[in-house]
Amino acid sequence: MEKEIVKPAEGRLGILVVGCGAVATTFMTGVLMARKGLAKPIGSMTQYDKIRVGRGKEKKYLHYGDIVSLTKLDDIVFGCWDVYPQNAYQAAVYAEVLKQKDIDPVRDELELIKPMKAAFDKNYAKRLDGDNVKDCATRWDMVEQIRQDIRDFKAKNDCARIVVIWAASTEIYVPYYEPIHGKLDTLVAAMKADDREHIAPSMCYAYAALQEDAPFIMGAPNTTVDIPAMWQLAEEKRLPIAGKDFKTGQTLVKSGFAPILKVRNLGLSGWFSTNILGNRDGLVLDEPANFHTKEVSKLSTLETILRKDDQPDLYGNIYHKVRINYYPPRNDNKEGWDNLDIFGWMGYPMQIKINFLCRDSILAAPLLLDLTLLSDLAHRAGRYGIQRFLSFFLKSPMHDYTQGEEAVNNLFEQYTMLKNAIREMGGYEADEEVD
Amino acid sequence: MEKEIVKPAEGRLGILVVGCGAVATTFMTGVLMARKGLAKPIGSMTQYDKIRVGRGKEKKYLHYGDIVSLTKLDDIVFGCWDVYPQNAYQAAVYAEVLKQKDIDPVRDELELIKPMKAAFDKNYAKRLDGDNVKDCATRWDMVEQIRQDIRDFKAKNDCARIVVIWAASTEIYVPYYEPIHGKLDTLVAAMKADDREHIAPSMCYAYAALQEDAPFIMGAPNTTVDIPAMWQLAEEKRLPIAGKDFKTGQTLVKSGFAPILKVRNLGLSGWFSTNILGNRDGLVLDEPANFHTKEVSKLSTLETILRKDDQPDLYGNIYHKVRINYYPPRNDNKEGWDNLDIFGWMGYPMQIKINFLCRDSILAAPLLLDLTLLSDLAHRAGRYGIQRFLSFFLKSPMHDYTQGEEAVNNLFEQYTMLKNAIREMGGYEADEEVD
Amino acid sequence: MEKEIVKPAEGRLGILVVGCGAVATTFMTGVLMARKGLAKPIGSMTQYDKIRVGRGKEKKYLHYGDIVSLTKLDDIVFGCWDVYPQNAYQAAVYAEVLKQKDIDPVRDELELIKPMKAAFDKNYAKRLDGDNVKDCATRWDMVEQIRQDIRDFKAKNDCARIVVIWAASTEIYVPYYEPIHGKLDTLVAAMKADDREHIAPSMCYAYAALQEDAPFIMGAPNTTVDIPAMWQLAEEKRLPIAGKDFKTGQTLVKSGFAPILKVRNLGLSGWFSTNILGNRDGLVLDEPANFHTKEVSKLSTLETILRKDDQPDLYGNIYHKVRINYYPPRNDNKEGWDNLDIFGWMGYPMQIKINFLCRDSILAAPLLLDLTLLSDLAHRAGRYGIQRFLSFFLKSPMHDYTQGEEAVNNLFEQYTMLKNAIREMGGYEADEEVD
Amino acid sequence: MEKEIVKPAEGRLGILVVGCGAVATTFMTGVLMARKGLAKPIGSMTQYDKIRVGRGKEKKYLHYGDIVSLTKLDDIVFGCWDVYPQNAYQAAVYAEVLKQKDIDPVRDELELIKPMKAAFDKNYAKRLDGDNVKDCATRWDMVEQIRQDIRDFKAKNDCARIVVIWAASTEIYVPYYEPIHGKLDTLVAAMKADDREHIAPSMCYAYAALQEDAPFIMGAPNTTVDIPAMWQLAEEKRLPIAGKDFKTGQTLVKSGFAPILKVRNLGLSGWFSTNILGNRDGLVLDEPANFHTKEVSKLSTLETILRKDDQPDLYGNIYHKVRINYYPPRNDNKEGWDNLDIFGWMGYPMQIKINFLCRDSILAAPLLLDLTLLSDLAHRAGRYGIQRFLSFFLKSPMHDYTQGEEAVNNLFEQYTMLKNAIREMGGYEADEEVD
Repeated sequence: MEKEIVKPAEGRLGILVVGCGAVATTFMTGVLMARKGLAKPIGSMTQYDKIRVGRGKEKKYLHYGDIVSLTKLDDIVFGCWDVYPQNAYQAAVYAEVLKQKDIDPVRDELELIKPMKAAFDKNYAKRLDGDNVKDCATRWDMVEQIRQDIRDFKAKNDCARIVVIWAASTEIYVPYYEPIHGKLDTLVAAMKADDREHIAPSMCYAYAALQEDAPFIMGAPNTTVDIPAMWQLAEEKRLPIAGKDFKTGQTLVKSGFAPILKVRNLGLSGWFSTNILGNRDGLVLDEPANFHTKEVSKLSTLETILRKDDQPDLYGNIYHKVRINYYPPRNDNKEGWDNLDIFGWMGYPMQIKINFLCRDSILAAPLLLDLTLLSDLAHRAGRYGIQRFLSFFLKSPMHDYTQGEEAVNNLFEQYTMLKNAIREMGGYEADEEVD
Repeated sequence: MEKEIVKPAEGRLGILVVGCGAVATTFMTGVLMARKGLAKPIGSMTQYDKIRVGRGKEKKYLHYGDIVSLTKLDDIVFGCWDVYPQNAYQAAVYAEVLKQKDIDPVRDELELIKPMKAAFDKNYAKRLDGDNVKDCATRWDMVEQIRQDIRDFKAKNDCARIVVIWAASTEIYVPYYEPIHGKLDTLVAAMKADDREHIAPSMCYAYAALQEDAPFIMGAPNTTVDIPAMWQLAEEKRLPIAGKDFKTGQTLVKSGFAPILKVRNLGLSGWFSTNILGNRDGLVLDEPANFHTKEVSKLSTLETILRKDDQPDLYGNIYHKVRINYYPPRNDNKEGWDNLDIFGWMGYPMQIKINFLCRDSILAAPLLLDLTLLSDLAHRAGRYGIQRFLSFFLKSPMHDYTQGEEAVNNLFEQYTMLKNAIREMGGYEADEEVD
Repeated sequence: MEKEIVKPAEGRLGILVVGCGAVATTFMTGVLMARKGLAKPIGSMTQYDKIRVGRGKEKKYLHYGDIVSLTKLDDIVFGCWDVYPQNAYQAAVYAEVLKQKDIDPVRDELELIKPMKAAFDKNYAKRLDGDNVKDCATRWDMVEQIRQDIRDFKAKNDCARIVVIWAASTEIYVPYYEPIHGKLDTLVAAMKADDREHIAPSMCYAYAALQEDAPFIMGAPNTTVDIPAMWQLAEEKRLPIAGKDFKTGQTLVKSGFAPILKVRNLGLSGWFSTNILGNRDGLVLDEPANFHTKEVSKLSTLETILRKDDQPDLYGNIYHKVRINYYPPRNDNKEGWDNLDIFGWMGYPMQIKINFLCRDSILAAPLLLDLTLLSDLAHRAGRYGIQRFLSFFLKSPMHDYTQGEEAVNNLFEQYTMLKNAIREMGGYEADEEVD
Repeated sequence: MEKEIVKPAEGRLGILVVGCGAVATTFMTGVLMARKGLAKPIGSMTQYDKIRVGRGKEKKYLHYGDIVSLTKLDDIVFGCWDVYPQNAYQAAVYAEVLKQKDIDPVRDELELIKPMKAAFDKNYAKRLDGDNVKDCATRWDMVEQIRQDIRDFKAKNDCARIVVIWAASTEIYVPYYEPIHGKLDTLVAAMKADDREHIAPSMCYAYAALQEDAPFIMGAPNTTVDIPAMWQLAEEKRLPIAGKDFKTGQTLVKSGFAPILKVRNLGLSGWFSTNILGNRDGLVLDEPANFHTKEVSKLSTLETILRKDDQPDLYGNIYHKVRINYYPPRNDNKEGWDNLDIFGWMGYPMQIKINFLCRDSILAAPLLLDLTLLSDLAHRAGRYGIQRFLSFFLKSPMHDYTQGEEAVNNLFEQYTMLKNAIREMGGYEADEEVD
């Protein structure tokens, strides 16, 4: 096997976040605090995980950074766009995720992070107001303005590399429309023709990022880069893309718990998932058109883990239902309640209920760190297109559905893919097979 | 790699179960019903699981029986011992686990399964009464009588092979006492000297089974075969032994859920597990001396999965508490409630609660089938001593603690060990490494 | 105080149930079994409750039947209408609520209960199919046919009195439309004009029952008798009416739990209720138009118990959300999950979660018995119009909203109203005041 | 009915709290904050509840303070004893119950509250250390020193009246021993004889308080004033006493939820209660001797609400189990998990699970306010001895068990008793009868 050549992580990495809300500010604050030794970036694979490399007597357990060259926390520079003009300090306080005492020590740094004007279209998120918004004649104009933002940021902050990550709201559902989304030239034409129905603002961010040589990561369930036109662009520009939807809370548990049933060959007749959330994400999802985007994303998880065709006696008839409820008393403290109707020996039924009192931004923040650092790594390793090894971090992992490819949703298989990619980029053998 | 030679599963396999209660009768009834196509042995790995053999383009997904020679359900003959004289039909009805309509079609077969007199010592299970009990002068006499039972059963039922499995109550805790349990000759001497303090009745069953060339499996948390003297005997006789404590309910979930935290590098500050159960098992465990045996078994799970030394920031200070409560309104419908206090980014706390409304015997029955069939397989493959690949089925898997060896409790690592053993016995490469 | 004159419960009482599904057959089977001493009618106030009459030294605790004259179980005759032609035995078996052994002893009696053809309009319950349906030219024709059914049943079964109770599905929501529902003559005119938009089939049952001197009880959330036209009819005919929606499961708990908060003066910021149910009721409610009827019924509970104007600091800003989910794996075993966000001293938040694994028909059956027996009692006592003392049994108790009257939803206040009515009809003083 | 004469609440009321831990400091902080309008004393009946006085057209809804003369928050002065010397500000910060921003505005006032040396005996609370302890030759000497403390405090702070309330740890269980606890003179003799086995330190506080004309309230499950000798003293001194064990969390819910079952005549076969708590209270209860005191207190709740003799079909065979678990990760954030096995129509089983994420001190603090203000009120009204109307606030309400009297545990009956007492002291009729 030929060793992949990975360019070293030299110079500063600009991380540009679309959205400066609870998730983005929790991420930024944590990184800045960790840099000062005042907080621990718990939940981050790049900062904590150790994996085996080598086999048998040769085996060692190493942190990712000891296997491959990763950007250091000290080399990160943050920027963002948002429809609200508040700086990252103000936004972090407003979000009420972190205690004041965990924000104040990096107040100065946060105050310097001021959102650039957002590329926004109210038809895509009716519940949002905000006037820190670009004035764009067409979608193509929107693209041009974002590209300029990226170039300005990179120059001003002396960045060697840029990664753009979406941590803003869920847009309304944009179904795949082959005549426009199928190829790069039709996509560009639609942007120029200002086709606002088929071109979501998020697509302008993605297009702009890729044109500016920045990997792009979609953290919401938006279909933005989940279309062949974007894959084509990523290939042409030899850039990684990843998405979609940060895997936090309920789906994280689901993608880890379903494998327990699977390896024990226990049957499943129904899985009911409901959750309540009260932050801006929940508000946006309270609009049916936006919720639909999310639901499509969340429903796919089970069927690829517990396969009807493999084990018809066990998984031939699963009733899977997902409900998301906007519930303001909770703010960011999202809560999931899952009920599993399982069956065992002779078909006798049993029940499992999982109640997850989680915190959306606390679970999402390390994903932003890992996704940006690992996309940057993939870029330096010359990997491009859909980064399947990042499925681990995503609720609805991208895959080439036009070729009949399927998503890998099983948390433990995703982890194997992640480990193998790190091993390979580090010059080790990818010695586990994803079953 | 040299291919293991596995003798084919020819002739009848006698499965002798110690205890003819809820677990044993649910197991027997299910096998008999499945044989007639009237029930599905769901939850059984040997009957349902398919694993990959080969890699890359060579890979295939096969049932265990297509990889190795397994005893067929039709070739099984059941026998048992119990302190109560009721036959298996009566015991199954009394247990109230299965519906009458799921027992009646095999009533005739079950009625023929009449418990042999049990080797019993009330000091080891104070809450049990029952007079279908052997009259034994000494522990050695107890051994002799059990051996005679096994020989008689084998001859009468024309069995080619025998496996003995313990599905009776938890005995009081017998801590490892090196001067007696350390070596085979001291163990035998103590049996002959009728040392009732150090020789539990279960040890007489195990000793007798091994002397009669039958693998022995301990399904309760008793330390019976978890002592060097028994390992020595198993080695001398070249027989497999396995134990201890069927992994059902709460520990099953724990051994599968803890890995979710581990692979996501989320921290854990506390795990509180309580459960309520009302069957005979619960009654026996209501006695503190018997409970202690169980508690020792259940507490070890977490520390080998979430390792303090590997990730001190995450798992350096876990408060783990397990409570078992006898609660008669539930009978066999055991219920677990777990509370996990986890923490993520910057140390912020979250909670997960898991409520498992399970059924003890429904979860245990397939384990008896798999453990007996796979022990028989191992025997035919010439594998002997502690069978670590069976850890998957056990709450407190045996391991050579005198050599500092540690138990593998992670459900997914246990599964890898199980798959690799099947692959190897089937002549395939064990291509995954347990991390 | 003048003693009310209550006619004694002489002769047979015909109970005609609209719908012969899970609820109706569980009710009938239980009454028939109880009559033979083979089951206990647990949960029934008329059969179990004892209340105090008299005060101080004069006080006694008596069963309702010892205070007032109640129809005995032996004097009940059952009849029913349904869109499916199966008799009550077949329907009870199909419902899978009761075990076979709890139905078979009264099989003969149940088989004699054959549904009369239903007055049905598929537009009111799209998910239902069934052809045991009347052929009706107009709504008025529907009324006439039902009246004939009642007369025939009464004569054939030698009944002294009849009560009609709705235990069929939820219809689509019919909002109050004053020009038609406001007065009896406009309602009749609309029936004659076959106004299918404003006249639900259930209204034809109610109208027919009242015209035939039978009290009518609405067990679903349908607005059937919750309109002034029906009140007028009930007054003119001097007949009791009651409704709406049997109080089972989640709302029962809510109407009992909210008072706990109230008497302890704890604050409430949010109450999220979700439930999953898989029976025919759930199927019908899966249709948005039918769900809306239910939701309106369930949402009113809290606001009248925890009053914003009385305690603005505590209840000034409650976010109350109710979700009902069709989930077939559960069949009749409905499950509710409630999350309460409460606050105490200095506004500090706490949470309560209530998970109710209930059984819809088991909870509903005693309500049918009590509502019919007590409506019959009220009739004999000369009470007519809306029977507020029956609020105890109803999710959305009727009240004269045209006069600004409010529903009483507090379970304990409802109980006081029930007790006082029994006392008064029994000639005792109604000595508690509903606060 | 003769109107009770209640002396007006003139002058300052000294509230002396035994224990200056989480509960006491949350109480003090809240009162001081409320005085400044910076926090709301939510959960306090005296500050929030409104009850009806008068009947029919005469009825009005009034706050307690508008019915009777209550001490105003502004007239309260706090003092305390504790084994640790930290002032109330330090203790409040250490307790981690309240946020810093909710303590700091009254820092000055809190710092002035410095614990007097505690009367302590380590044999009664093995897990506690602390050296702010009186040096007492005998129990009688202990009494004398406490009396001196009370006199000094009263004089120094210019108090018109004093109330003493125990908010310290649970002592080990002191069973009622008639030869000593039966009469006042034998109690005094034992104190003088320094009988440390039968005289708990808490008895010295109670005795001293009563001798100094201060009502005494026992907030832990200690049997301190639950003995005839103390009743005799309270009668002789014409002082109110109350106890025992603040009703917070799980028992609060139980005493409110059991009545729901009762009024609906649903059966109960089992109630399993477990809770986890990590504060100093939990630490002390981790010692079996101290836990026993608590368990005795908690187990009595159900049997007086759901009476076996009244409804043998429903409550004839309840299995009630209570478990308390020390679990440090939670600190003051106590959590209860209850499982109820209920049954309905024809005996069919259902389950209810209640998960209460509560906060011990937040629930307890308003009880201290109400118990002290209402004891002071009772004193001014000339009521003395056991104050049954305060049962509402207590887990194991005192009652004269030597006369076969029973505790009232039903929350709603307790509330009726509370309301009637307020009405009577206010000159209104006690118009509800406790059933």
